[in-house]
Amino acid sequence: MTRYHPLMHAPKSIAFIGLGIMGLPMTGHLLKAGHKLILHSRTKSKAQPLLDQGAAWANSPAEAAEAAEVTFICVTDTPDVRAVLLGNQGVIHSAFPGQIIIDHSTISPTATREMAAALAEKGATLLDAPVSGGDLGARNATLSIMVGGPAPAFQTVEPLLHLMGKTITHCGPVGSGQLTKLVNQILVSITNLAVCEALSFARSSGLDPEKTITALAGGAAGSWQLQNLGPKMLKADFAPGFTIDLQQKDLRLVLEAAVQAKTPLPALSLVHQLFTSAQSTGGGHDGTQALFKVLERLAGR
Amino acid sequence: MTRYHPLMHAPKSIAFIGLGIMGLPMTGHLLKAGHKLILHSRTKSKAQPLLDQGAAWANSPAEAAEAAEVTFICVTDTPDVRAVLLGNQGVIHSAFPGQIIIDHSTISPTATREMAAALAEKGATLLDAPVSGGDLGARNATLSIMVGGPAPAFQTVEPLLHLMGKTITHCGPVGSGQLTKLVNQILVSITNLAVCEALSFARSSGLDPEKTITALAGGAAGSWQLQNLGPKMLKADFAPGFTIDLQQKDLRLVLEAAVQAKTPLPALSLVHQLFTSAQSTGGGHDGTQALFKVLERLAGR
Repeated sequence: MTRYHPLMHAPKSIAFIGLGIMGLPMTGHLLKAGHKLILHSRTKSKAQPLLDQGAAWANSPAEAAEAAEVTFICVTDTPDVRAVLLGNQGVIHSAFPGQIIIDHSTISPTATREMAAALAEKGATLLDAPVSGGDLGARNATLSIMVGGPAPAFQTVEPLLHLMGKTITHCGPVGSGQLTKLVNQILVSITNLAVCEALSFARSSGLDPEKTITALAGGAAGSWQLQNLGPKMLKADFAPGFTIDLQQKDLRLVLEAAVQAKTPLPALSLVHQLFTSAQSTGGGHDGTQALFKVLERLAGR
Repeated sequence: MTRYHPLMHAPKSIAFIGLGIMGLPMTGHLLKAGHKLILHSRTKSKAQPLLDQGAAWANSPAEAAEAAEVTFICVTDTPDVRAVLLGNQGVIHSAFPGQIIIDHSTISPTATREMAAALAEKGATLLDAPVSGGDLGARNATLSIMVGGPAPAFQTVEPLLHLMGKTITHCGPVGSGQLTKLVNQILVSITNLAVCEALSFARSSGLDPEKTITALAGGAAGSWQLQNLGPKMLKADFAPGFTIDLQQKDLRLVLEAAVQAKTPLPALSLVHQLFTSAQSTGGGHDGTQALFKVLERLAGR
């Protein structure tokens, strides 16, 4: 049983920076739980529904975080987080001892460690906490959240994370959340390719591919990707749960981290190249299941 | 609910050819259900426990099948099945109208269609019915059985197949069982590689790889391979559920069939090459999870 920190029900002063497709619903859960929120985002209009519900607005990351016990960040890539934390009007300029900063973006583990060291000089603690589960998981508060950083800081914010996610894992020291998310992306991407090749072969061999999924999904061939993306591939439903462009950003992070870890990833590199093919034909905004189209194109179909 | 054929409880006259690690326990289930069995195998001594329980022995496939309403075959590769069916003392020489022959081996779909055509000239029906679930599935009668061939013949033998397996699927015309099994092997093999790359990266990055599996297995990264083979890789438990040598035989069948279907399978080819690396260093008798050793060797570990 999860033991919650006694502060779970005490309203906290919270900053949230980045109100995109993920950050917006996540902020809503914190607000609903009665916490005091101050927001900042590149586009102020996105914050309006939350401002109408009583959240406050700040004109910069530094201003948002200056009185916040906990500051959440949910942006896209490493340079975005760097700007929010270390830029001219970055969080570091108002950082204070005991402050906890939680980064939900998926970014470089190495850059994460560097930024944590910079914040530590002001006495603040950075937790890396990338999520999986997509915008649906953000809306339904069913995200998986993979957290790196010191255990005491993790325990302090764990009740807040439970407002936004279902599976909250403390993975190890700072950077471990990012590394775990990268492992997730390796599994997700190569298994996606497994499903594409299997269904491309099934269809071209004259099998009924829907029946084939049903026959195989319960056994050793089974996976979340087969069960969830397989039927979409067959119906040519390429609407994004998660876009190829975003997945490519994550795979770039994987490949960089793999070089540092001296670990060759041949199949992951292959998926990265095939996604590049999807992007080169204008498919970057499709969902990752559109990898199936690349396989079909390879087969001249 | 599965509707069983009225003949389910009527004892049948059955031949079973091939008493290997799979065939032997499968035969046991048929015998226990009260059917009249006549056996043939390359090594007679393997049949002895079943002969002691009342099964009869035949000196050739033709002799085993000559009075059998249903003849089961469970051998290894295409040439083995060809010898059993069309060889000098093959089943075809005693085949008779209405006879049903069920081949549980995983072999070429094209060769299966050719042999079905040859048997059809004697009025006999060949069903291809490869299985998945390994020797454990054979012993516990929990196999998945993928069947190709005419529906009436399938319905006649379905009750017998339920004595040996749990998920029995009629996949389509003759050859469809083999094709479905090949789709299974595509999924199983590439997903296996996904798990190997993910855990190789996790370990070399300094993560706790067991904890990483726990954090990710319930989400979009989840698969049977991750849940079942992942922990074995980390414990260096390479005892075979299914050997790399046998998997390579199946992947050769996949690659041949893929050429015929004009469908490139880049990741499947990659797995095939990496398994070749395992074989070239004496690892052919390891379980398929020993693909992890190849990844670790690639990384110089």
